[in-house]
Amino acid sequence: MSPDAHIVSTGTALPGEPVDNEAIARRFGTDVASAEAFIGTRQRHFAVDLNTGQVTHTLTDLGAQACAQAMARADLEPRDVDFLVLGTSSPDALVPATVNLIADRLGIDQVSTYQLQSGCAGALQALDLACRLLDEEHLIGLVVGADVCVKHLVLDRNTNSVGRTGHVLFGDGDGAGAAVLASELVPGSIAVRRVLNRFSELSRTPGQVVRWFGAADLARPEQPVEQDHKAIAQRVPLLARQAMREVLGMTGWYQASVSYLLPPQLPGRVPQHVANELGLADVTEISCVADVGNAGNALPFFQLDLLRDRILAEERAVAIAIEPSKWIKAAVTLEGM
Amino acid sequence: MSPDAHIVSTGTALPGEPVDNEAIARRFGTDVASAEAFIGTRQRHFAVDLNTGQVTHTLTDLGAQACAQAMARADLEPRDVDFLVLGTSSPDALVPATVNLIADRLGIDQVSTYQLQSGCAGALQALDLACRLLDEEHLIGLVVGADVCVKHLVLDRNTNSVGRTGHVLFGDGDGAGAAVLASELVPGSIAVRRVLNRFSELSRTPGQVVRWFGAADLARPEQPVEQDHKAIAQRVPLLARQAMREVLGMTGWYQASVSYLLPPQLPGRVPQHVANELGLADVTEISCVADVGNAGNALPFFQLDLLRDRILAEERAVAIAIEPSKWIKAAVTLEGM
Repeated sequence: MSPDAHIVSTGTALPGEPVDNEAIARRFGTDVASAEAFIGTRQRHFAVDLNTGQVTHTLTDLGAQACAQAMARADLEPRDVDFLVLGTSSPDALVPATVNLIADRLGIDQVSTYQLQSGCAGALQALDLACRLLDEEHLIGLVVGADVCVKHLVLDRNTNSVGRTGHVLFGDGDGAGAAVLASELVPGSIAVRRVLNRFSELSRTPGQVVRWFGAADLARPEQPVEQDHKAIAQRVPLLARQAMREVLGMTGWYQASVSYLLPPQLPGRVPQHVANELGLADVTEISCVADVGNAGNALPFFQLDLLRDRILAEERAVAIAIEPSKWIKAAVTLEGM
Repeated sequence: MSPDAHIVSTGTALPGEPVDNEAIARRFGTDVASAEAFIGTRQRHFAVDLNTGQVTHTLTDLGAQACAQAMARADLEPRDVDFLVLGTSSPDALVPATVNLIADRLGIDQVSTYQLQSGCAGALQALDLACRLLDEEHLIGLVVGADVCVKHLVLDRNTNSVGRTGHVLFGDGDGAGAAVLASELVPGSIAVRRVLNRFSELSRTPGQVVRWFGAADLARPEQPVEQDHKAIAQRVPLLARQAMREVLGMTGWYQASVSYLLPPQLPGRVPQHVANELGLADVTEISCVADVGNAGNALPFFQLDLLRDRILAEERAVAIAIEPSKWIKAAVTLEGM
């Protein structure tokens, strides 16, 4: 990967106040205890007011807010930014791509923009693309991961839709994270060594499907969200191990040289299975899903935000994202500068 | 851009038989003559049976079919392909990204996949990303542009929805195009010189919006598609001229050295305005929208498919795509090998 890519700063954005499991249980009359054991998330933020149903934040709002923080921390003006890459599964609209509305909001004009459609692996795909964009005319760029689940969040307690989307309410959350990427080496930055992004598991049924509806679907919409929890619990730890081995091999690192692990941010008991499967004893694990919720493509950037406060020069980190939709394994090797 | 990128082969796919303006007028009782003057499209293909409303092709179906043709023409097996990039505005679902279902259908496993969300500019963005993916572990890849408008195609003649989506019916169409990209120079291939992809027109209102609906939108859906035809007619020719000038400057080419122009494939009188604005006298124009319909991200690949039959070694071509959503200008310089 050339030229070198460095994460100079990070930024994050969450809508409104945190919503804990008790608040959701009160609002919808569901059972907290069993849900909590299953999902493992203590709180999350929503881009909608759960009481009024009013949407409070768009993906554009959250993405622009995270970018603005990352830019301020790197002391950048809009004219300094040469490109934007967004990874999301939940764009504000199909067209225009939300990344352009974020650029517009930030006052960034005449730049290359790209938006990757993906579940959680999109965050690392966006980082990969951003690294490859760095060249003589792209010196500094913004990489963003963001998701909002509000369009699929049915809040009417009088329908049985809450039951259907209950896992969304408890497990998911909304948010955005961003990073400033530059080819120039800045002390205190994090170098991106290699990025793995690999479609796996040929012929295996998707573990997660999230649909969208058009005007012609309104009369008879399909199930909006489907998840195969058993397949996810089985396959994600194995794919995480594969991703770890493959990205270390690509980078030429021994596992013992890694100080930090940013593991897949999946709900429930899966994270523990992943840790067991990876057999990591002496690494520091950096996770955020319990407090941020499963904010999809935003989560790896929240983890990077935490890593930046801790990683020292020459320390090594590996971030892994496993997307159970059609079984994507993604990973990145990082090094403190 | 290094290493060099070469388009080795192309493939296309259209669903079913062509649907001409008379057939649509018969089906919906609309006025052909005025519509035809406005839209400039003689026929298009739809991934839905207009009489029964039955969906006949998914984006996955069409994308895989176009890829299979491109692979067969380049004599490639699934194991030869190192990556797939899809540009689309109309994925089959939000998650998994359709590009993975296309890979699965083709029997391609353990490869890097990326899906760019974009209007028509996504085709050139996908080509750009594919060129940047070529490296020591990515030697050969598939680039795909595809769109299907059927999810927004309301066919009930008893509602007034046909009126609202009439421009979709007449102007749009469904299809997919693909190209095999390789770093190795193959005689008869087309070299990709430079790709321009630039968000423009800061603060200008979008000229086109295509929305998607979630489970929470079903009760009160917004207008699915909005277009500002006047702004499109005004701005697209100007942006096409800018794109032409900028991509020629990036490549270091004089306009007089260009033999072929693949202009923006926009409906109605816009193409003539574009040609006038570009002031091109001695170039051969390669267009397909009149016969294929406005199949979005597929169209640049249909144009490439036509170019491949004509371009000779050392001849030069420029392709331009202007996306009026949030005013994206994209262009690529190409050279016969």
